[in-house]
Amino acid sequence: MVSTIEWRDSKVLMLDQSRLPLEVRYVECTDYQMVAEGIKKLWIRGAPAIGIAAAMGIALGAQDIKAGSYDDFIERLELIMQTMLDTRPTAVNIKWAVGRIKKLLSEKRDESIDNIKKILIDEAKKILEEDIEINKAIGKWGAEFIKDGDTILTHCNAGSLATGGYGTATAPMLIAKEQGKRIQVIADETRPVLQGARLTAWELMQAGIPVTLITDNTAGALMKKGMIDLAIVGTDRTTRNGDVANKIGTYTVAVLCKEHNIPFYVAAPLSSIDFSMSSGDLIPIEERPPEEVTTIWGHRIAPDGVCVINMAFDVTPARYVTAFFTEKGAFRPKDIKKIMREDVDIESIRIR
Amino acid sequence: MVSTIEWRDSKVLMLDQSRLPLEVRYVECTDYQMVAEGIKKLWIRGAPAIGIAAAMGIALGAQDIKAGSYDDFIERLELIMQTMLDTRPTAVNIKWAVGRIKKLLSEKRDESIDNIKKILIDEAKKILEEDIEINKAIGKWGAEFIKDGDTILTHCNAGSLATGGYGTATAPMLIAKEQGKRIQVIADETRPVLQGARLTAWELMQAGIPVTLITDNTAGALMKKGMIDLAIVGTDRTTRNGDVANKIGTYTVAVLCKEHNIPFYVAAPLSSIDFSMSSGDLIPIEERPPEEVTTIWGHRIAPDGVCVINMAFDVTPARYVTAFFTEKGAFRPKDIKKIMREDVDIESIRIR
Repeated sequence: MVSTIEWRDSKVLMLDQSRLPLEVRYVECTDYQMVAEGIKKLWIRGAPAIGIAAAMGIALGAQDIKAGSYDDFIERLELIMQTMLDTRPTAVNIKWAVGRIKKLLSEKRDESIDNIKKILIDEAKKILEEDIEINKAIGKWGAEFIKDGDTILTHCNAGSLATGGYGTATAPMLIAKEQGKRIQVIADETRPVLQGARLTAWELMQAGIPVTLITDNTAGALMKKGMIDLAIVGTDRTTRNGDVANKIGTYTVAVLCKEHNIPFYVAAPLSSIDFSMSSGDLIPIEERPPEEVTTIWGHRIAPDGVCVINMAFDVTPARYVTAFFTEKGAFRPKDIKKIMREDVDIESIRIR
Repeated sequence: MVSTIEWRDSKVLMLDQSRLPLEVRYVECTDYQMVAEGIKKLWIRGAPAIGIAAAMGIALGAQDIKAGSYDDFIERLELIMQTMLDTRPTAVNIKWAVGRIKKLLSEKRDESIDNIKKILIDEAKKILEEDIEINKAIGKWGAEFIKDGDTILTHCNAGSLATGGYGTATAPMLIAKEQGKRIQVIADETRPVLQGARLTAWELMQAGIPVTLITDNTAGALMKKGMIDLAIVGTDRTTRNGDVANKIGTYTVAVLCKEHNIPFYVAAPLSSIDFSMSSGDLIPIEERPPEEVTTIWGHRIAPDGVCVINMAFDVTPARYVTAFFTEKGAFRPKDIKKIMREDVDIESIRIR
């Protein structure tokens, strides 16, 4: 499995994804500013992965702080945390990582500065390990829905590269392979930013899973020919009612799956489920620059001055989703709102 | 209006569409092999346009034949016609043009070889002129289904560039505009070859029709938002039962239209309807080189050695088609098989 980010020899080693698949370059970040630069320049991307990167950046920055007291130390660390928060202002996982570290620090007032520095490294490593464990659990539950010989369609990249490891949508594939199931994957290239072509195809090849790349236009034709058994995608945000915001084109995949009676699964760690939001209609959809559509690697593919609509995400209504794969099990969309309730027996709503 | 192909000074002048929209370059074809190369390399594409190109290529090749007898002449011409047929196996219009020329030749056994050579040039020019008339008629019938204020989705390029002029799918748009209807068009970029981004967007801008470019992934989301009123596409080959072979991704557009109760129209000149074929399942689907998917303008966007499925076309079953626009009128798919029958009153099956 490809390592996206790790803590090694007092440094943060980060795979520069912006060069994939043409070049596999690891960047050795020797200070927190380099980690921040990596997040900003999209060397690392994917919600869970940048949360991990922020935690590691904070731990790295902490080692260089020379402070006489806890308060002194915290004051300097605050600056480092703010640098991380400023890299991707809308990234909820950086906020989450900073919040988690602040809470931990508030419990460690009595420790020595040297101990706190060690604790921060341990915590960053723990965030990485926990992420991998969450993904493995998603993979374990999801793999139950994959049969020997299945062909799986996926869209965009919700793979190892977007997480600490295993990925979300790819975890069931990796676990199914570990279980000895012979599977293959069809990867949508995912215009405009081509995460499927650049990242998903690459990382599945690394993992030894047979993968076939198609244009986004081809999925429907393959389904009609009976060449796809199920679809698994990730999610940027899922609301309480089971509506799924994910990369543009996900909704089209869901409609095609419905038309062909193909199960459509969403791999959704609990951290991606927004239990406070009642419906996907409320999710703000980011519009991105037209150049993502009109140019590819600087090469213009459309007439000068043409109008463009470039929505980064779409929302797939819950009724199209066969099941969600989470670290707590697989669930029907209607049961998403119940999975965090303490009065609900989780086993009674799990599906297999 | 842009000229796609014309006969000029004993040569075939062809707009090299593979360079659009960056460069407007005309290629002067001096022998039939160059015309065949142009068809194969997509300098010219679009069902009617390549039918015209094939006819012009045959006429061009005929001029160079040195033959003592009619039978000798025909024997050599057969080789040229076969070269044209081999350029694009799915293209029914080349077959149609060859058939038309063969029929004409069989009536001209008594003419001198020199006269026959002139007749072939006249016939190729006539095919071009007739094509423009046919498209205007398609436009007239199709425009009846476009209301003032409508937003029309189209896929790939079935525009002026794909024909002698006016286009097939674009003809109803151009006629609607001539009728004073305010319309706008959403153009799918149409990966892998990007005919929507490169050609449709460009030629609609030339024609003064407001056009917005989207990735193929975006159409579903726009339909869900109620932003598309109807879809009009072209066809490479439609079978007797109303099944439609067209650019890959057309089937996905049709499924999305069905899901959102949006009319899905196919502009189909009679020459694109294969009355001899009973079903779209019988249409051979051309697979094209993987490099169309893995590289864009020579720039690699996918890992080295990745598997690719690159089907050029898909088949949309008749049940997804609201109506066909032909030069004889607009018809339901079930009536396609009747439109050439002399015992059928055409007005009784036309829809408006």
